[in-house]
Amino acid sequence: MNLEPTIEADCIFDEPFELVSGAVLPRLNQHYAIYGELNADKSNAVLVFHALTGSARIGDWWHGLIGSGCALNTDEYAFICINFLGSRYGSTGASSVEFYADKNDSEFPLVTVADIVRAQKQVLDRLGIEKLKAVVGGSVGGMCALRFATDFPEATEKSIVIGACELSAMGLALNHLQRWAIRLEENGNGGNDGVSLARALAMLSYKSADLFDEKFARRPDRSGENPFEKIDARFDIAGYLDYQGEVFRKRFDSGTYKTITKAMDLFEIRSNYDSEEAALRRIKAQIYLIGISTDWLFPAKDVRALAGKMRRNGVDVNYIEMISPDGHDAFLSDTAQTSKILKEILIND
Amino acid sequence: MNLEPTIEADCIFDEPFELVSGAVLPRLNQHYAIYGELNADKSNAVLVFHALTGSARIGDWWHGLIGSGCALNTDEYAFICINFLGSRYGSTGASSVEFYADKNDSEFPLVTVADIVRAQKQVLDRLGIEKLKAVVGGSVGGMCALRFATDFPEATEKSIVIGACELSAMGLALNHLQRWAIRLEENGNGGNDGVSLARALAMLSYKSADLFDEKFARRPDRSGENPFEKIDARFDIAGYLDYQGEVFRKRFDSGTYKTITKAMDLFEIRSNYDSEEAALRRIKAQIYLIGISTDWLFPAKDVRALAGKMRRNGVDVNYIEMISPDGHDAFLSDTAQTSKILKEILIND
Repeated sequence: MNLEPTIEADCIFDEPFELVSGAVLPRLNQHYAIYGELNADKSNAVLVFHALTGSARIGDWWHGLIGSGCALNTDEYAFICINFLGSRYGSTGASSVEFYADKNDSEFPLVTVADIVRAQKQVLDRLGIEKLKAVVGGSVGGMCALRFATDFPEATEKSIVIGACELSAMGLALNHLQRWAIRLEENGNGGNDGVSLARALAMLSYKSADLFDEKFARRPDRSGENPFEKIDARFDIAGYLDYQGEVFRKRFDSGTYKTITKAMDLFEIRSNYDSEEAALRRIKAQIYLIGISTDWLFPAKDVRALAGKMRRNGVDVNYIEMISPDGHDAFLSDTAQTSKILKEILIND
Repeated sequence: MNLEPTIEADCIFDEPFELVSGAVLPRLNQHYAIYGELNADKSNAVLVFHALTGSARIGDWWHGLIGSGCALNTDEYAFICINFLGSRYGSTGASSVEFYADKNDSEFPLVTVADIVRAQKQVLDRLGIEKLKAVVGGSVGGMCALRFATDFPEATEKSIVIGACELSAMGLALNHLQRWAIRLEENGNGGNDGVSLARALAMLSYKSADLFDEKFARRPDRSGENPFEKIDARFDIAGYLDYQGEVFRKRFDSGTYKTITKAMDLFEIRSNYDSEEAALRRIKAQIYLIGISTDWLFPAKDVRALAGKMRRNGVDVNYIEMISPDGHDAFLSDTAQTSKILKEILIND
């Protein structure tokens, strides 16, 4: 059973919301969930950012990590998670027909991590939360945690960033090929295999070669196919990827996938209006950068390099390396390691 | 200018050729090229295996490595390369209309590395070459060099295997997704973008993250697109991958791609008729296994592990690690390192 939120609600802003690109959303819905209870002076809130395909319902994807006595301890803190602007789980996004019923989703404007974070800050303001205990996120959620620290330096005590930094060329390449797969589908016969292929490709970058060897090795597909018999008969790893793709296309859509992967691509510490150095020097929160030893999408060495850059720019930064065989996904799958690290950061208050 | 072969010819076998799968090809063409001159007793021949998308024309793809005074020294040896059974550059394969004019290419039977090697051995027999100085190949060509050593133990003095071993689960995954991309195209609107996407994906596994960072970093596409402007505007790495895909689809076809990647998948030292140990114990050639330090498709540690296994089974094996930032492709792109290693092996006769 996944943990249920204390509150799950919509926060609607009827005024126009201008994006970094200059495009304007006529109104904005931010769908959010809260786990635990906000105290009287609203000083016990932690903002959690979900990852690429997640929702505001932390309990649905951070299994075993949130709840009474867990690393994200609902007895102590109120954990707020807000579905990304551009996403599909309740907030205004590429698939939100109530706002864009007359357009196809490819017309949804370019969304950046800065837009996502600013939209979420509006929700905090509406809820009357002035200062967070922490912001925390992995992957694109980690990008959000970084952006929050640069853009709203007074609004959080800590920022916990797991498996995230600017994407390297290899990361950009992976996202490009995923959107290419989706385009193949869009240009094709209306099948929906392109989103599945994009997801399967993403899975390679979320896991590690060692993990795949341990779980699948060169075994034939568990359904009994013999890969030595015909060209389409699969090894077990292929069956696993097909399955992951199939499950995914039932819960996701191509417009959202393109929107959020593009936001990942565009994430940089610097921006049009200031340099990397200026952005880093604005940070007041204590930063925790967590690299994952087997991460291929955001190599630990890249996260470590960012920590060095921060330190040189006066940021109070800690670099922690999570030693896990699970690859990038470790922040979701390796509950023991992730719990241990988050617990220490959140308890040593 | 690419080096031209001394001879380029077809070797046609009119008798049926039975594949490991049991399927029978009514006849077989093996297209080959020879660089340098065979000596009178035909004792100076080296068999070179091309890689996934290569041809018999070594000079077209092993630039700077073959010629007078080069690592593959045509003053000393005669280098023979035979286009793979199943390939498209002259030999009987998925696209050879002269044999399969009435079928579509998906019907070409399953080809294994053992089939490729046995077909090539027939050419050597026809040419009157009893014993080779060496066999050498990288990637799937390295698989061929290994298979040659196990299946024709008397027929070569040395076997040089670069960046090859049995594919890991990650390798199987990559090939599966490439064939999936091709299937998307085949099921779609007749566009030929699927083969391009497959190639682009393969490029990720042929190169290394560090190489991409060095060459492309997060620069915008060199044509002047600004990735921050719209969803389809690219970074430079994306433009590079698109270009690689585009060039590739002009020279390759989906049937051949599926056939040879499947042969890679199926390559194992063991076979239906004997165990891994028995196969290894048959080897008489001196084996040189060359791992590439940054290889993601055939990780150096996997190649090294194979060397250990060989040694435990009485094989005279040397493991050499090529230190190169180029990833799997180093055997093609890092001419200096590859030359140095091949020269030492071929000279120390």
